[in-house]
Amino acid sequence: MKWNRNLPIGTRDKLFKEAASAYDMEHQVNRLFHARGYQRIETPVIEFDDVFSAINDMNLYRFFDKKGRLTVLRPDMTSPIGRVISTTGVTPPLKLCYSGKVFRANEELSGERNEMTQAGIEIIGFASIKAEIECITNAIGILKQLGIADFQIEIGHAAIYQAIVQTLGLQEKDEEAFRQALQNKSLFGIRSFVASHPSAMDAFILALPRLFGSVDTIQEARDLTDNVVILEALAQMETIVQVVDAPEHLSVDIGLVQELHYYTGAIFRGYADMSAVHFLSGGRYDSLFAQFGEDNWPAVGLALNLDEIVSLKRRTLKTKKIDEKVFIHYSLETKQLAEEVLARTPNASLSFFDELSESIAYAQKWQFSKLIDVSNNTILELEVTS
Amino acid sequence: MKWNRNLPIGTRDKLFKEAASAYDMEHQVNRLFHARGYQRIETPVIEFDDVFSAINDMNLYRFFDKKGRLTVLRPDMTSPIGRVISTTGVTPPLKLCYSGKVFRANEELSGERNEMTQAGIEIIGFASIKAEIECITNAIGILKQLGIADFQIEIGHAAIYQAIVQTLGLQEKDEEAFRQALQNKSLFGIRSFVASHPSAMDAFILALPRLFGSVDTIQEARDLTDNVVILEALAQMETIVQVVDAPEHLSVDIGLVQELHYYTGAIFRGYADMSAVHFLSGGRYDSLFAQFGEDNWPAVGLALNLDEIVSLKRRTLKTKKIDEKVFIHYSLETKQLAEEVLARTPNASLSFFDELSESIAYAQKWQFSKLIDVSNNTILELEVTS
Repeated sequence: MKWNRNLPIGTRDKLFKEAASAYDMEHQVNRLFHARGYQRIETPVIEFDDVFSAINDMNLYRFFDKKGRLTVLRPDMTSPIGRVISTTGVTPPLKLCYSGKVFRANEELSGERNEMTQAGIEIIGFASIKAEIECITNAIGILKQLGIADFQIEIGHAAIYQAIVQTLGLQEKDEEAFRQALQNKSLFGIRSFVASHPSAMDAFILALPRLFGSVDTIQEARDLTDNVVILEALAQMETIVQVVDAPEHLSVDIGLVQELHYYTGAIFRGYADMSAVHFLSGGRYDSLFAQFGEDNWPAVGLALNLDEIVSLKRRTLKTKKIDEKVFIHYSLETKQLAEEVLARTPNASLSFFDELSESIAYAQKWQFSKLIDVSNNTILELEVTS
Repeated sequence: MKWNRNLPIGTRDKLFKEAASAYDMEHQVNRLFHARGYQRIETPVIEFDDVFSAINDMNLYRFFDKKGRLTVLRPDMTSPIGRVISTTGVTPPLKLCYSGKVFRANEELSGERNEMTQAGIEIIGFASIKAEIECITNAIGILKQLGIADFQIEIGHAAIYQAIVQTLGLQEKDEEAFRQALQNKSLFGIRSFVASHPSAMDAFILALPRLFGSVDTIQEARDLTDNVVILEALAQMETIVQVVDAPEHLSVDIGLVQELHYYTGAIFRGYADMSAVHFLSGGRYDSLFAQFGEDNWPAVGLALNLDEIVSLKRRTLKTKKIDEKVFIHYSLETKQLAEEVLARTPNASLSFFDELSESIAYAQKWQFSKLIDVSNNTILELEVTS
């Protein structure tokens, strides 16, 4: 038959150990969230399109339901949680956690994953900077527990970019050019932007592509501006860095801009030495929830891209000693005995073959170290050699 | 703004304890699969449409990708696993397990869930009846571990229905009428079917609506037919019941037909006293994999509908004693002390409020039993009363 053997763009299968370790990691992260007092929330994969109206310019999987309403596969969990809070009796302050799949309809050949497993927290209704500090403390704790070596969390602030856009009165097209240049840390792009938009902020803006790295960068930035909004943002970044107190894992990026535009305060991203993409992002978004109703709530969120962390771990992992596996061959008459041996033998599993020779071949193929044959109502142990 | 507060048809949110217990249950089931030697596999949510060509008459979520190819949200995991085996170097025999979301585009008001969490196993490449026995043994073990009381697993056989269809030479429309009457155990429907399709099997077919219940039903059925295919099917059912040896949880249904048409051998479904819908189904499907390539493989699968099992448990659950929760209030200067107290206190979590009064109000609202205030660099314990 004419059968398409490919998978849809940006999707892939996970087999055996990769699948098991990805699943275990998701569970471990959830256990750590739970241990810090977060309450789990699960929302549907399919949502109406307008839930994500704050997410601009993003490739979403969209389709119509049977009544002709536009639905999407969720691209993140933050907006659905906003919907929940506005449609249920649940009122903040809340400390929520989640994990599950999110979807982005990236183009072919972009190399991006279109189905990703995310886990994260949303701290809603807390205006204090303690919420940002918690996200970063929690992230560092989790990455350490997962055994990720050499990770860095970069801290920025959404108000810095917004203060520049507002002070210069940038319109949409110019703002987009500025954002692009800043995201790419393009010295040339920033120079040509400043040339066409001269202002008292020139020195500060021109420095942005190099204003990242150690915590001292905050003082460098402070010396270049007297904009009160930016100075307040820098002060917040400094407080976060001081209280989290993990200099080996923290750096700052004064020109950091997030892909999602809804952030209003401190923002952060996590990288590892061996990975080009960030596996962690988040920040404060104090106005996102306003779109869902009359109540607005201050909020800070953190999302971990578990697929990236899994593949990072796989690249750095030392080969672990493999447990000795035992295969149990039985007959229909000795099923009960087989279950008893199974229950008391670590790393054992049953064979469903009728012939002993088939069980032996399978045990060799899958590198079992021992085969226990109980088919004659006695317990016969066989070493498996390949 | 005009914002749609509804959720798409057949979807719902899970909050807090419900979400946590659903997640915990999925993990527990996976742990039990792993303990019996199953290897995990994860396939994408989005697949090309032709992967599911064996699934007839089912409402699928379908949409086109950017190249105009028809894609679907997977309605089950069995067909994707068939695709994996035909497209990778992985060859059976295999003992696989999975868990994740599956999707069915049921109509509004049908009351059905359109997003479901399934967990299951696929035993591929084993022709022995040990594979069927394993599925049912495993299912009983899991349901007991999950604390489900009074569950029943009904065993049937796909070859019985198929033998009748073949012997009578039924065409599509008549077959559908017969299937409907059988599914509904409609005495009237079966009588009128037999009246219009008289044959030597009349007595057997007329008895089908009442041929379910205890294991003795197998002997009753045997007395009504001399069809060799049906007699072989009944013998297999008898072997399964005898070897599994759990009479309190097993019953038979000679006229059982599954929603999915790809089964070829023994089939089974699980129910509980308090639930109208089945939360478990499976069976042998020895020809499904042929569609994916030249190799065919005997296979038996079992799928658990975890959402049904979660709601079943919630209905029967005795109220558990709630753990005493502790809330820790701190200041930016005493963050380190707060982390130390958090690490050594069971069921504790941090407050992200700046004001002690806010922390007290939150602790009251969420029924914390104790508040520890470390904001003055001393450890002050406060009982919380509501």
